[in-house]
Amino acid sequence: MRSIKLVVEYDGTDFSGFQRIPGRRTIQGEIEKAIRRVMKEDIRIAAAGRTDAGVHALGQVVSFETACAIPMDRVAIALNSILPADISVRSAAKAPPEFHARYSALSRTYRYTILNSESPCAMLRRYALWVRRRLDENAMRCAAQSLVGTHDFASFCMKESDDEITVRELRRAEVCRVGDLVSVTLKASSFLWSMARIIVGTLIQVGEGRLKPSEIAEILTARDRRRAGKTSASAGLCLMHVEYPDCIGKNSGEIENADYHAEG
Amino acid sequence: MRSIKLVVEYDGTDFSGFQRIPGRRTIQGEIEKAIRRVMKEDIRIAAAGRTDAGVHALGQVVSFETACAIPMDRVAIALNSILPADISVRSAAKAPPEFHARYSALSRTYRYTILNSESPCAMLRRYALWVRRRLDENAMRCAAQSLVGTHDFASFCMKESDDEITVRELRRAEVCRVGDLVSVTLKASSFLWSMARIIVGTLIQVGEGRLKPSEIAEILTARDRRRAGKTSASAGLCLMHVEYPDCIGKNSGEIENADYHAEG
Repeated sequence: MRSIKLVVEYDGTDFSGFQRIPGRRTIQGEIEKAIRRVMKEDIRIAAAGRTDAGVHALGQVVSFETACAIPMDRVAIALNSILPADISVRSAAKAPPEFHARYSALSRTYRYTILNSESPCAMLRRYALWVRRRLDENAMRCAAQSLVGTHDFASFCMKESDDEITVRELRRAEVCRVGDLVSVTLKASSFLWSMARIIVGTLIQVGEGRLKPSEIAEILTARDRRRAGKTSASAGLCLMHVEYPDCIGKNSGEIENADYHAEG
Repeated sequence: MRSIKLVVEYDGTDFSGFQRIPGRRTIQGEIEKAIRRVMKEDIRIAAAGRTDAGVHALGQVVSFETACAIPMDRVAIALNSILPADISVRSAAKAPPEFHARYSALSRTYRYTILNSESPCAMLRRYALWVRRRLDENAMRCAAQSLVGTHDFASFCMKESDDEITVRELRRAEVCRVGDLVSVTLKASSFLWSMARIIVGTLIQVGEGRLKPSEIAEILTARDRRRAGKTSASAGLCLMHVEYPDCIGKNSGEIENADYHAEG
């Protein structure tokens, strides 16, 4: 058996999210279907981030094990020849046997793009949220900074279960304006459900002057989803990069741990 | 009556081209439908370029006359609130009474985008043609230069009728590489049907080494469509800009003339 690591790009617009749902068009479903045709095996893939419907990826990482002997340099070409045009394999490489796209990851980086202009933009409609009211990116940057660090992000997530641990380490939260485009880049060990989009929704309220940057700390402390801003549209969000240890030569238990605690 | 000039952007992927065809989703059809709802008038619009199915625009120009008294600064907002998300009005302005988006235009500028990389790219699939074989952009640039000037472009167009005049002035033909992206920018008084895409298809053959740059002059002289390369896919093409005289205060006959002969 070989472990294979794929870096995958997709336009999430026309998918019901990453995770396989019978009868729905999902990214996992399409990739597993392509693997089945290339490798002649029924394989379940693991992924670094289970992106929601409409969310994109430039650097999603997927891993799986296969007994198929296809040469490594043919894997991406073979999969791309079968995958639909809105999913593409950017690279395929042999991974250490203990590698797991989700549990080996040290961090995920997402970028959210906002088009802040008088009129909407047809070419960006799939990849950016359009906000007409002028955003104060300096206020947004200041608010973003107060989220950096290890916090209980209960106000900034949709809970998957009542006993879920909602503490995460947000390592980077940058707001950048280039002309009409405002981007929010978020890097964390891992993200809670909708966390990136709720953070952005809240930062937009700050940018519009409806919340003060100083109120972010109070919202964090409240641990109450109703205090934060609304979940921003999925179209603006893109999984940019997943970071792994330089050397993966540890046992997988250690690495799984690293997902939640490394650099914490 | 007022003359109105719109600058329009669209993602052409899901349209059967610009020109209205009953029962088909076209850009003209959607814009006229939106005008009908805003202005309560049944209006035919004129456009600078009748782009084919799948071709995009960042700077298409559209003109029409209306008796509707809606304030000028509300026109774009009102139309955008009705138009589908893959068409957007970038600006709306009052034009001189003799202004005509097609006949007043001095030049059109198109850009064709090629993704020249090992693997395809999901996020660019609607906006760029993917070419795996490494393109020699210097050879393409050299070939492009030999097309600049006033020539009979019969080899580089689909004829609309047998007696069509196929002489055009190509004012600019630039090839530029930034990483894996190769763009071809073409500016002409006006373009023949499929001219931009056949020029690009031929330049790609040059880039792949299947044609020599010096053969372009022979292909021009042959005035035979079969001598040039194939028509490149519409997805890579975008109407970037339409140029008009600084002062439109001439009679429309003169301006129509300018479309074909100015700077010639």
